[in-house]
Amino acid sequence: MMPLHDPSARGFKSDNCAGAHPEVLAAIGAANGGHQPSYGGDVYTARLQEVFKGHFGERAEAYPVFNGTGANVLSLQAMTEPWSAVICAETAHVAMDEGGAPEKTGGLKLLPVPTPDGRLTPALIDRQATGWGDEHRAQPRVVSITQSTELGTLYTAGEIAAICAHAHDLGMAVHVDGTRLANAAAALDLPLRAFTTDVGVDVISFGGTKNGLLYGEVVVVVNPEAARGMTYLRKTAMQLSSKMRFVSAQFIALLEGDLWLRSAGHSNAMAGRLHAAVRDLPGVVMAYEPQANEVFVRIDADVAARLSKRFPFETWDEATGVVRWVCSFDTTEADVDAFAAALAGELRG
Amino acid sequence: MMPLHDPSARGFKSDNCAGAHPEVLAAIGAANGGHQPSYGGDVYTARLQEVFKGHFGERAEAYPVFNGTGANVLSLQAMTEPWSAVICAETAHVAMDEGGAPEKTGGLKLLPVPTPDGRLTPALIDRQATGWGDEHRAQPRVVSITQSTELGTLYTAGEIAAICAHAHDLGMAVHVDGTRLANAAAALDLPLRAFTTDVGVDVISFGGTKNGLLYGEVVVVVNPEAARGMTYLRKTAMQLSSKMRFVSAQFIALLEGDLWLRSAGHSNAMAGRLHAAVRDLPGVVMAYEPQANEVFVRIDADVAARLSKRFPFETWDEATGVVRWVCSFDTTEADVDAFAAALAGELRG
Amino acid sequence: MMPLHDPSARGFKSDNCAGAHPEVLAAIGAANGGHQPSYGGDVYTARLQEVFKGHFGERAEAYPVFNGTGANVLSLQAMTEPWSAVICAETAHVAMDEGGAPEKTGGLKLLPVPTPDGRLTPALIDRQATGWGDEHRAQPRVVSITQSTELGTLYTAGEIAAICAHAHDLGMAVHVDGTRLANAAAALDLPLRAFTTDVGVDVISFGGTKNGLLYGEVVVVVNPEAARGMTYLRKTAMQLSSKMRFVSAQFIALLEGDLWLRSAGHSNAMAGRLHAAVRDLPGVVMAYEPQANEVFVRIDADVAARLSKRFPFETWDEATGVVRWVCSFDTTEADVDAFAAALAGELRG
Amino acid sequence: MMPLHDPSARGFKSDNCAGAHPEVLAAIGAANGGHQPSYGGDVYTARLQEVFKGHFGERAEAYPVFNGTGANVLSLQAMTEPWSAVICAETAHVAMDEGGAPEKTGGLKLLPVPTPDGRLTPALIDRQATGWGDEHRAQPRVVSITQSTELGTLYTAGEIAAICAHAHDLGMAVHVDGTRLANAAAALDLPLRAFTTDVGVDVISFGGTKNGLLYGEVVVVVNPEAARGMTYLRKTAMQLSSKMRFVSAQFIALLEGDLWLRSAGHSNAMAGRLHAAVRDLPGVVMAYEPQANEVFVRIDADVAARLSKRFPFETWDEATGVVRWVCSFDTTEADVDAFAAALAGELRG
Repeated sequence: MMPLHDPSARGFKSDNCAGAHPEVLAAIGAANGGHQPSYGGDVYTARLQEVFKGHFGERAEAYPVFNGTGANVLSLQAMTEPWSAVICAETAHVAMDEGGAPEKTGGLKLLPVPTPDGRLTPALIDRQATGWGDEHRAQPRVVSITQSTELGTLYTAGEIAAICAHAHDLGMAVHVDGTRLANAAAALDLPLRAFTTDVGVDVISFGGTKNGLLYGEVVVVVNPEAARGMTYLRKTAMQLSSKMRFVSAQFIALLEGDLWLRSAGHSNAMAGRLHAAVRDLPGVVMAYEPQANEVFVRIDADVAARLSKRFPFETWDEATGVVRWVCSFDTTEADVDAFAAALAGELRG
Repeated sequence: MMPLHDPSARGFKSDNCAGAHPEVLAAIGAANGGHQPSYGGDVYTARLQEVFKGHFGERAEAYPVFNGTGANVLSLQAMTEPWSAVICAETAHVAMDEGGAPEKTGGLKLLPVPTPDGRLTPALIDRQATGWGDEHRAQPRVVSITQSTELGTLYTAGEIAAICAHAHDLGMAVHVDGTRLANAAAALDLPLRAFTTDVGVDVISFGGTKNGLLYGEVVVVVNPEAARGMTYLRKTAMQLSSKMRFVSAQFIALLEGDLWLRSAGHSNAMAGRLHAAVRDLPGVVMAYEPQANEVFVRIDADVAARLSKRFPFETWDEATGVVRWVCSFDTTEADVDAFAAALAGELRG
Repeated sequence: MMPLHDPSARGFKSDNCAGAHPEVLAAIGAANGGHQPSYGGDVYTARLQEVFKGHFGERAEAYPVFNGTGANVLSLQAMTEPWSAVICAETAHVAMDEGGAPEKTGGLKLLPVPTPDGRLTPALIDRQATGWGDEHRAQPRVVSITQSTELGTLYTAGEIAAICAHAHDLGMAVHVDGTRLANAAAALDLPLRAFTTDVGVDVISFGGTKNGLLYGEVVVVVNPEAARGMTYLRKTAMQLSSKMRFVSAQFIALLEGDLWLRSAGHSNAMAGRLHAAVRDLPGVVMAYEPQANEVFVRIDADVAARLSKRFPFETWDEATGVVRWVCSFDTTEADVDAFAAALAGELRG
Repeated sequence: MMPLHDPSARGFKSDNCAGAHPEVLAAIGAANGGHQPSYGGDVYTARLQEVFKGHFGERAEAYPVFNGTGANVLSLQAMTEPWSAVICAETAHVAMDEGGAPEKTGGLKLLPVPTPDGRLTPALIDRQATGWGDEHRAQPRVVSITQSTELGTLYTAGEIAAICAHAHDLGMAVHVDGTRLANAAAALDLPLRAFTTDVGVDVISFGGTKNGLLYGEVVVVVNPEAARGMTYLRKTAMQLSSKMRFVSAQFIALLEGDLWLRSAGHSNAMAGRLHAAVRDLPGVVMAYEPQANEVFVRIDADVAARLSKRFPFETWDEATGVVRWVCSFDTTEADVDAFAAALAGELRG
């Protein structure tokens, strides 16, 4: 098959518009050939357990799944009873961008909280952390946070520690939507476990797709006491891959060496370069502090419309004029510089 | 990454124990690089529409998804109302092997019918096709058949035509679980549409994984009047791939040329070779007529236990001693001959 | 308000076509007036606990609900995990007559078993009691039986003991759909607990509506270790009555004295009288042994059509010509005699 | 059975702490005796259709159900597709007080909007009325309002007209949670249809329990084009009463004459009397304008604690010290005066 697209064209729309890292494709090739037990009985999925224990501690269990929606819904199902509720930020992907899958497919009741920048705090959690023992209220059982957040911001390790301590005090467990957890680690310059396992996180949706995989996420059960039925629920959630060796091989390629960190660090650096190039331009207002690989700014809607025809990106909020620019493992300095120059040109009229 | 497994080891456990066909991996490589719109806005998914129209007719719509459970549940959700029921064979994968996903995740009520060999008929359908207008009964709305069946048997085009005519007369639509639809086409020596579109099938779960893909199935809506909400339901069913170009590219590689037919025909031929080699062995009783790429036989349990240590395969039914042998696109004549010889040896004691 | 119907007209269609027993209405009157805490905080619901402990043992907990579908689905939800399955007879009300509510509303996977007369046995249970640990199979967790059955037959106490022992050995719990449990007790001439609590039953849907209540059933958790989340699940199952005192008062009227037994015994006796009057009529074939308050016979379809215009009753199975005649607490000897005479007349032509 | 409670004790906790109006009990008595078809085939349910058409117009269809949670979830299920969402006030009963039943049992995604006093407006609706065609967002399909609201406030007929016009312009339908619709009619001094049918409302959960019934609500489909599958969904929602004649007879007693209006007008008047008696007391701050039968005030927590021991009522919001006082059809002037005097006494210390 011949390529149908231009492999040199890149934009700033999303890190899932990028393709797969060559090392990832090579790993799939290495795992190919011959027969291996399906549904996770293969040697690659066995090795994957060791890789994840290395990053998240000896108790960690890794359950490969297909996509982020699946990872989140499965995590939350395994952490809750059928009468439970999940406290999350109003801007959480699980509340906003999964088409209602958590409620409709997962039977989950979400209790969203407005936040200034996508980050919960113990005080914000308390706005919904009420009503235990009252059958008229779905019982709060999990706090779900996103790291890095949907608005490109970061929790420090200490902030996550405080959330975990507070949640645990109230009898709740903590889930991290880690679609971009690698970007967080790179930005915080910390090992993955330093702001998850070590500060009390219970279950993580660990993202691979946005960091250079073809497909695949992993539900990491850091605290096995906080999740039950994972094996069965992964099947009923329709997230059990038959040829799981290929999901696992990709994650081994990502996490056994430093590919995860190289790629995430690079995309963060490109976002930083973009931020530096545009923040002082007249007509650009930063919407949130860009702390990982995403930059949110307010610009004129006409400028945004013209610019996005040349470099694809997304308008985040029509009402406020906020747009989102995302950098990927394959974003180049030249991409950033050309884009910043184009923006400057458009702003000048 | 180095291979962790022996790429020369193969067995007869399932066609999902095989890996990916080299042409499929090449297609992924061709589709890689640069940025493409996510969630199906890419050029490969656009081309895929044409490929599927070529096979299934101009009205056909192709919705790539991750796996077979997802394809089946999504198809049936799109074909039903929340108060509907689905008539299927008692041995249907959707009833037996999906961990309850249809009921638990899809909210589907199944009405299973015992069959002699995995195949429904109009008369068998009538055993459950009752109760319309009675609110105490989930309303039969879909007949779901599997082609080739879970027992390795085949419907002729005429048999499917009769089922479709009967179902349509009763106001029901017809779904085909086509996990192995390519094997059926090869065995029947018919174009795909000849026993689907042309005889009245409404929606198909078209399998890729068991015919040499890394991952991926396609829900083919042959009759758009028989399904609604596909786009939204694919998302809530957690089957929407972000980097969809890679699912689509695999299917283009499979279906644009004749790879699908070569691979399926080969696996059928290997099953035929195996059947021929073993059917007359004393101690072997054929359980079903092997019409595609699967062979079901009754053998002594001790023989099965010893043999499966050397060549992995599955005991299908402990109670009756039936075992299942599945051939794949990469099964070789030497594999078959060695296996048949080993069986003969074990049977001789 | 004036009556709109003829209060002297009665038939044999169902015990839920009868009204309420006068003692039940009197109890509602007694419980009326003044304010009482809603949602079960009232004194009648407190007293109800004692009444049920008296019948089912000191560990029994009573949860009033609205109707039988609700009682069954709630019971089974509380007894299962989201990945569990429930083994039941193919003719079970939960499988046949609840419009798919168990699957669609309760997220339950049923594993139905064909039976000769509506009764399961350990051997029949074993046809579905397989697959623990296999994520592709919903995990059998509960056996649900109906006493008296949907076909008017009875389990002996010993038969239920054998089912409970077998289920418990396999790690499953036992639910009884006791819509007509009172009829069973009257027919067996045993206290309620003798064929439930004392032989190992875990949870019961205890019927009131068909034994002379306006409305109301009670989920009786005989073994609190076998159910969890009852309070919350009753709310999410939409079965939490705000003015619960009126459900509870009805059940107190039924169960504190012997009203339950008088009424059930009477309806059984009327079915017995009917059986005796018709069993030897030419053209009448008994379909099942009538052991409680229901009589199932095969008669000519034209006879059935003419007769049911004079005395309403239901054709149970169009295909086989089986009809069902149900007696109620208010069925009189004269009703039975007139009906039997009419049948004899119709049969004579 | 003897009364177990004091029929002269009343409080201000909820209108569902009251019992049934004597005329309602009389209607049940009139409907009792003899046999009537179950599940709504009876003459009372037939008459009920006429009664509701009289109040809500010739197209209105009335579906009796058991309780308010059931009425709301059933209404919203019938008005939506499986991928739809429902816009409601953050304080809506459906969002706050149904234990997650809408999400968990109904598969509904709610899009709550903060409001000043429990009332939505077109502008507030627009905060969530976005994203049609975007599969990542559950598709807004219904606006649900409560009349009178959970905070004791009222929409005018004009305000509801504006909401309906706006919703319909956007392709959405309008549901009214009318648990206290009678109170609204009495307060507005308008026929029921003047602020529902005549201004564009599509479906209503019409409350009976809080206005003097034993139990029972009615889903009124004012616009049959806005709901589908009602009959089947009522069954799967476990809200189909077998002895439906008794639900219908109660509603006939309520609505055929003016009992509904007398009772609602009386409870409103008692709330008005209470409001007048307390609003100028030092230490009492009105939380919302009391427009129907509920009064919300801020008082000192210790005062509230002491007072509620003498006259039961509910603390609505621990954080703000708001308490709720609800008047019923059986609240007397003496009750109100004694309560107001007790409050004044407590406030004086």
